[in-house]
Amino acid sequence: METTTKWQQLIAYSKAHGFLFNSSEIYGGLQAVYDYGPYGVLLKQKLKDFWWRSMTQLHHNIVGLDAAILMAPAVWEASGHVAGFHDWKVDHRVSKKRYRVDVLIETHAATLIEQGNAKAGEALLAEMHDLLNKADGSGLTKLLKKADIVCPIAKTSDWTATKQFNLMLTTKLGAVEKETNQVYLRPETAQGIYVNFLNVQKSTRLPLPFGIAQIGKAFRNEIVARQFIFRMREFEQMEMQFFIPPGDDKQWFTHWTAKRQQWYKVLGIPDKDMAVHPHTQLAHYASEAVDLTYAFPFGSKEVEGIHARMDFDLKNHATLSKKKLTYFDPQRNQSYIPHVIETSVGCDRLVLLMLCHAFTQTAAEGINRTYLKFPPALAPISAAILPLVKKPPLVQQAQAIFKALSPSFSLAYDEGGSIGKRYTRQDLIGTPYCITVDNDTLADGQVTIRFRDTKAQERLPIADLPRYLQQRCTLDNLLAQLA
Amino acid sequence: METTTKWQQLIAYSKAHGFLFNSSEIYGGLQAVYDYGPYGVLLKQKLKDFWWRSMTQLHHNIVGLDAAILMAPAVWEASGHVAGFHDWKVDHRVSKKRYRVDVLIETHAATLIEQGNAKAGEALLAEMHDLLNKADGSGLTKLLKKADIVCPIAKTSDWTATKQFNLMLTTKLGAVEKETNQVYLRPETAQGIYVNFLNVQKSTRLPLPFGIAQIGKAFRNEIVARQFIFRMREFEQMEMQFFIPPGDDKQWFTHWTAKRQQWYKVLGIPDKDMAVHPHTQLAHYASEAVDLTYAFPFGSKEVEGIHARMDFDLKNHATLSKKKLTYFDPQRNQSYIPHVIETSVGCDRLVLLMLCHAFTQTAAEGINRTYLKFPPALAPISAAILPLVKKPPLVQQAQAIFKALSPSFSLAYDEGGSIGKRYTRQDLIGTPYCITVDNDTLADGQVTIRFRDTKAQERLPIADLPRYLQQRCTLDNLLAQLA
Repeated sequence: METTTKWQQLIAYSKAHGFLFNSSEIYGGLQAVYDYGPYGVLLKQKLKDFWWRSMTQLHHNIVGLDAAILMAPAVWEASGHVAGFHDWKVDHRVSKKRYRVDVLIETHAATLIEQGNAKAGEALLAEMHDLLNKADGSGLTKLLKKADIVCPIAKTSDWTATKQFNLMLTTKLGAVEKETNQVYLRPETAQGIYVNFLNVQKSTRLPLPFGIAQIGKAFRNEIVARQFIFRMREFEQMEMQFFIPPGDDKQWFTHWTAKRQQWYKVLGIPDKDMAVHPHTQLAHYASEAVDLTYAFPFGSKEVEGIHARMDFDLKNHATLSKKKLTYFDPQRNQSYIPHVIETSVGCDRLVLLMLCHAFTQTAAEGINRTYLKFPPALAPISAAILPLVKKPPLVQQAQAIFKALSPSFSLAYDEGGSIGKRYTRQDLIGTPYCITVDNDTLADGQVTIRFRDTKAQERLPIADLPRYLQQRCTLDNLLAQLA
Repeated sequence: METTTKWQQLIAYSKAHGFLFNSSEIYGGLQAVYDYGPYGVLLKQKLKDFWWRSMTQLHHNIVGLDAAILMAPAVWEASGHVAGFHDWKVDHRVSKKRYRVDVLIETHAATLIEQGNAKAGEALLAEMHDLLNKADGSGLTKLLKKADIVCPIAKTSDWTATKQFNLMLTTKLGAVEKETNQVYLRPETAQGIYVNFLNVQKSTRLPLPFGIAQIGKAFRNEIVARQFIFRMREFEQMEMQFFIPPGDDKQWFTHWTAKRQQWYKVLGIPDKDMAVHPHTQLAHYASEAVDLTYAFPFGSKEVEGIHARMDFDLKNHATLSKKKLTYFDPQRNQSYIPHVIETSVGCDRLVLLMLCHAFTQTAAEGINRTYLKFPPALAPISAAILPLVKKPPLVQQAQAIFKALSPSFSLAYDEGGSIGKRYTRQDLIGTPYCITVDNDTLADGQVTIRFRDTKAQERLPIADLPRYLQQRCTLDNLLAQLA
């Protein structure tokens, strides 16, 4: 149970140290919705900035977009979400708990496989996928019985019938009652890119292949939302849709799968914690698909998906909107609907990955120590400026350093308590560098820099601080590794 | 009608040049919702970044937050939005058009004042505010008749009764039909800060006074949404809530009003285009309030509001949630509910301000020229890298420069068409610097830099480019003016 404990510790830690709070906590919270606290919001911003700049700045043929959350309802008819964006739910008559049918069956199959009964486990999965594809609810109800799958709480199989449940949230726009439109809160950001494909192409004049990158919120009415910020009802996606000539799908799918793996390496995530999982069951819109997974404490789970979506989306939008969504290719001298390779990151999952990766507990020399070993360029606070004691000349010097560095770096300033306690506070939120102003500083113009991971200290002239932090705490050097 | 024309030109220009698109345009659009295109998203990001860093980085006692859009419904009961966040609407029986009653009356009063009948105009406004404060709908219906206010289209006063209309959008969360919660899409971001006040204070240990800054989306079901992105149903706010000891309200209100005015100066907005409008009618929660307005082509309108909100919000949340939302002040040796000074920027309005400010049409030496004179640090694209002609050694050199600078700057690379046409393209999206690689470059290692506003050119060694762009195209120097 060691991993469970560490996982629960991490959740409590994230709340106590200002990374994540339950939404509306003073009112008892809102299930599966979280707020980012002072350090969480900085961590998320830097991760988003790293992704955004690696996609758009490093590639002259990838541009950005920020489409609204609210879209015309027809968008979700064309995309297939109105007809098909369902989960299957089932209730247990005794425990009164509600479950996702596929999750129940997958968990049971995994247990069978673990117990050495791989054949039965795989057969169960195959049967489930077949029933899901046929949207056969009564088949799924029967399968739960047949496989003798029980409620984890009540330990019996006293299930209700399975039911389909559309995951899209809706709202009503418009002030006139009989003219109100039911619109959806987008369940994914990708469609905002597809419907703007020609707007972007015409205003930028980019020839194929080119990409459109976007970061934004999406909403899903998850039946069972859990695992902290891993599966939330309000979440953020970072997607890049790459438009290519038909036939080049395989080449670009391979290219982007490799590129995205390299990105996590540069982020500092060890190879052993990342994996590539090809989809065995492809969605109706995909010709190829892989998940990039991270070894979370609760299992190896998807952080990013890479999908070859062919012309599925653009073709459907062209049909339903009756607009021409073709591109004229001067090299091939023909017009066509482009194919698409999609890379889609769960932004909150990436934050969670980084928290899991950074969370460090050591017991060197008999002293327990907890800190967050974020890569310095991603740490919420790059450096803390600390006067050794709260005396006017030291405080003034420390504040002058803060003022000079603050336009370029996210800093903390702390003059309260012993220096050891202040180091510990910065360790707990993952600040890589503590810059201390002491009495010698006033004489020699040098400060002490302490590094979080090793606790090693070095002396450095104040004038060298901008360059020192520039080299370590900005994203430029990480990005240069990808350029 | 010259300003109207320029305004309509600007809207068309924003769409044609990749700044803003109608949401879901291929499906006929979604009223009062817009998508940011490739250059719009970069402009907005840089404005957000400038605001965020000026608030959080430059002040060691202001930290960030990113609360979710979805919150517990009780939040909006405590804030007064469920009971009071209404507009008054009225329909015209002949034209079938719907109007906001206050807008109709204000427009009529402005006309009276313009025509020299200031007394009647002001009396009309006073009577309207009185009726609005009393929520007297039949009084408003009578006032429309009495003042002989007519429909701008039908030119008669054949009005229906006025009706209240709550502006909050709603959705339903939860998979169980009878347990679904109706929740609101937040109509403002401020409440996410208030309900997290103690979470932030405890995890950061900041003593009062301190601030919490946040950027995020909000939603309002506007009756009449118009003026492009000035009033949208989905919009973004940038708010900083500053928590202070009771009694210090006046001092901090004055402080932040001056600070925020300075911010627009550093942004380069001329004094003549900005104004401070104290509210004559204060909202129920405010002891003092001003609008910072910008001279938009359609009139001088609010971009930012600064409000002294006293303890209105925290007190109501404490009452309704039955949680203690007090702060123990070690200097005063007492516990109290803090007072709040709020600075609230309409983020999309700031983008619109910047587009209006930058849009430049000149006719020097008989040549018509249109360009966007963004401050270089805010321009979507900082520099374009252009090989003079599309020949291998020049293309290779230009691409090498792009690659070297791309981790640090948002660049364009363009090798198509005459150099003059490429300059024009960059002028149209407001790129301050065009960097041209020519045959001399291969010999002397120097490039030509052309500045957008003056078309002046200078030669510079390639090795100097990082420093050249660093000084002009990053936010650091702007921020240093505010530090």
